[in-house]
Amino acid sequence: MSSYLLVHAESDREYLRGPGEELQTDLGVLEVPEDVEHGQVLETHLGEAFHVRRLRGPDLFNHFERTGAPMMPRDIGLVIGHTGAQAGDRVLDAGTGTGVLSGYLGRIGAEVVTYEVDAEFAENARENMAMGGVSDRVDVRTGDLTEHLDDLAAGEPFDLLTLDTADAAAVVERAPDLLVPGGYVAAYTPFVEDARETELTAREAGLGTVETLETIQRELTVDERGTRPSTAGVGHTGYLLFARRID
Amino acid sequence: MSSYLLVHAESDREYLRGPGEELQTDLGVLEVPEDVEHGQVLETHLGEAFHVRRLRGPDLFNHFERTGAPMMPRDIGLVIGHTGAQAGDRVLDAGTGTGVLSGYLGRIGAEVVTYEVDAEFAENARENMAMGGVSDRVDVRTGDLTEHLDDLAAGEPFDLLTLDTADAAAVVERAPDLLVPGGYVAAYTPFVEDARETELTAREAGLGTVETLETIQRELTVDERGTRPSTAGVGHTGYLLFARRID
Amino acid sequence: MSSYLLVHAESDREYLRGPGEELQTDLGVLEVPEDVEHGQVLETHLGEAFHVRRLRGPDLFNHFERTGAPMMPRDIGLVIGHTGAQAGDRVLDAGTGTGVLSGYLGRIGAEVVTYEVDAEFAENARENMAMGGVSDRVDVRTGDLTEHLDDLAAGEPFDLLTLDTADAAAVVERAPDLLVPGGYVAAYTPFVEDARETELTAREAGLGTVETLETIQRELTVDERGTRPSTAGVGHTGYLLFARRID
Amino acid sequence: MSSYLLVHAESDREYLRGPGEELQTDLGVLEVPEDVEHGQVLETHLGEAFHVRRLRGPDLFNHFERTGAPMMPRDIGLVIGHTGAQAGDRVLDAGTGTGVLSGYLGRIGAEVVTYEVDAEFAENARENMAMGGVSDRVDVRTGDLTEHLDDLAAGEPFDLLTLDTADAAAVVERAPDLLVPGGYVAAYTPFVEDARETELTAREAGLGTVETLETIQRELTVDERGTRPSTAGVGHTGYLLFARRID
Repeated sequence: MSSYLLVHAESDREYLRGPGEELQTDLGVLEVPEDVEHGQVLETHLGEAFHVRRLRGPDLFNHFERTGAPMMPRDIGLVIGHTGAQAGDRVLDAGTGTGVLSGYLGRIGAEVVTYEVDAEFAENARENMAMGGVSDRVDVRTGDLTEHLDDLAAGEPFDLLTLDTADAAAVVERAPDLLVPGGYVAAYTPFVEDARETELTAREAGLGTVETLETIQRELTVDERGTRPSTAGVGHTGYLLFARRID
Repeated sequence: MSSYLLVHAESDREYLRGPGEELQTDLGVLEVPEDVEHGQVLETHLGEAFHVRRLRGPDLFNHFERTGAPMMPRDIGLVIGHTGAQAGDRVLDAGTGTGVLSGYLGRIGAEVVTYEVDAEFAENARENMAMGGVSDRVDVRTGDLTEHLDDLAAGEPFDLLTLDTADAAAVVERAPDLLVPGGYVAAYTPFVEDARETELTAREAGLGTVETLETIQRELTVDERGTRPSTAGVGHTGYLLFARRID
Repeated sequence: MSSYLLVHAESDREYLRGPGEELQTDLGVLEVPEDVEHGQVLETHLGEAFHVRRLRGPDLFNHFERTGAPMMPRDIGLVIGHTGAQAGDRVLDAGTGTGVLSGYLGRIGAEVVTYEVDAEFAENARENMAMGGVSDRVDVRTGDLTEHLDDLAAGEPFDLLTLDTADAAAVVERAPDLLVPGGYVAAYTPFVEDARETELTAREAGLGTVETLETIQRELTVDERGTRPSTAGVGHTGYLLFARRID
Repeated sequence: MSSYLLVHAESDREYLRGPGEELQTDLGVLEVPEDVEHGQVLETHLGEAFHVRRLRGPDLFNHFERTGAPMMPRDIGLVIGHTGAQAGDRVLDAGTGTGVLSGYLGRIGAEVVTYEVDAEFAENARENMAMGGVSDRVDVRTGDLTEHLDDLAAGEPFDLLTLDTADAAAVVERAPDLLVPGGYVAAYTPFVEDARETELTAREAGLGTVETLETIQRELTVDERGTRPSTAGVGHTGYLLFARRID
């Protein structure tokens, strides 16, 4: 059961709350009914109106409790676009972190097993998955994925591996044992040295269509003087490796 | 019912075929069984082996019959990432074209109504949707979306508008009438003049979090001499506008 | 006669002063000898040491008194690289602004006539030219270049036109009358609408090798964790048009 | 004495020839007079007209006999812009290669000593310097700069070091001994590993304002449909390190 986005229209302030939960702010106390539906308008005891909206991916990014810098919607989108992540996919993910990627994947209908080494981060991610309405589809496991590779390789294969860890290469090396034929691995690496290592490891592992992409995104500034790319600039986030099991 | 990707391992040649269909190539004739499952290996009458794989988004992009340049996996991914397109979403799309975006959206569990003005293109897109296994979730309508805005605005609202047409601004203008609160519009425009128009229209329409993004993606070249961005370069595809109904 | 860069080594503070001038700061008073030479160390009356250095282009950018945002060293460099600006060139420039571009051009041995409509800006630029040691090679004229085109076209032709004004297109139109055969025009335009207009005007004027370039520059971040493009991002400055008189 | 650019107007074909030299093509034989001046029109014995133009930097890039891929006008410009290379500068350069950078530096009035390990390349570069009219200002030495560092450090210091060699870091390390205070080093490195090494070496050597820049340049496409960045893309050339002796 998902939370909803509660939006105070006058101030643009937003909160995530689930059915039966309470919102306490300086705008008053608001009890979210068990049978709440998006499109409704709820009022606090002070008469402040909150609009109830269905959650969407960017809301997960904006409102999940964070344990470090989560992957951005743009990079999550690129993972989905380049791998064709889809409903029914079995996904193996590490490391969970805040869980925004897992949340997105759950909300497009994928079944996700995700590993997080930090027990507190894992617990926080589980709460985020509950808030994101994907607890039934995202299994957050506390632990180091690289210690479970043999077990996982012996089990049912995955359609997709998504990696955002410092030792991604150690998992990429085993990708052929973990993936269905035609399945993808996506690895996110902030530094070029790691990007190089994952690329070389993917090739040595015999994966196909190996490519490492760098993405620069800029906002277009539109005003009465004219149109131009933003002078503010948008910085580097990470390199994305994509490779596919081809045998 | 989806097609499958049939891969001839020795030559890397790939074909999409559905259950009960026939593949005729110089590698021989192959009848796809009605109960085919991914993971199987099928043989042609000449004994050539084809591996059966589940379809993924990039396969739609590579194998759909094209009627013009389809949106690329990278841009489709950005649409999904920035709007949080998800299972259960009701999406209104125009123009269909080859239907790769619609196919991706269908495969993440969204329900799509898509308009294509060219009747032949629309028919081709319907065949692509069948091949992509999303005929039940993607309704390809022949016609000009801008002529149906009043009817659509009077009906059930959409979670997402995705536009890849020359007159996107005419639809963006009506986005508040077509979207649920919190719903997104995404518009893809190759030229900066159209990007400017859609941005200004989105603002005038009262939409929120309006931004137009330009994306530059480069491949990293990794070889024994070192690592560097590709000298080949990757060109511009289009600007992407994102905006959200905030009231 | 050029100023020198006076650098207080302990604090990295820098000042431009010419022979015979005085520097008064909280570090004490320093009289610059008439026969000062770079490489010397001068002391204030409080005994603070200042190193005397020869001026270089980036010093002009950092220390010229500004009247608006000057063109950046990177864009000045691109103008020089793409046009081959060189010693002995006769350059016609507008608008002068702070005069950093003119200063650079003077210091590579070009003879520059530059127009600035704002009388105060022009006077400031003249002082900057004196400080930059290029007063004898840069003629800062107060006025609007577009009102002098006929006179200038009747005179000795220029090797190079450099334009950083809102009405650059009006000058580009006359470039064939102002340039020697093989001479270049370079126009800097922050907005894409102006970039389009200058490009179309250059083509209509019959200029050759017309191209409008956009430059994105990023700093590489190197630390113990690894190497990556800066996460800070570098924003847009302007489009640069280059075209050449080919007849 | 410089060559001139001889342009056949009807065909846009161009050749570099000096006073007293002969041009033999299918358009006929043309003797360039000893007292040739730019602006003249010369005719071949077949009556084909060639326009005589003064050389400019991009002509060096287009017409110098090549021994490998020369540095591009854009990168040469960035070197000049970021270091303020100027008339009167003493420049130490390696490796010469085709000599386009040296030619540009000579034509802005700098005195250049440049090292090229390959004797044939060095001889070719000397011929290019003659053609470029900068033989008196560019001293092409056959040899490995790294073997001459002690001698050079004992001599008159340089205002600028420009490096385009695989072992640039070995020279950057000695930059404080080779440069005047306030002098710059610029190093061009295609691969990120070398860029990292030169950056770290520059810092360890105690140089100031150390930065490594990556430049992406795109052409703007302007046609009747609208304006957009080129879909063709422009690839990576190299990283540029800039650092300054600050003591």
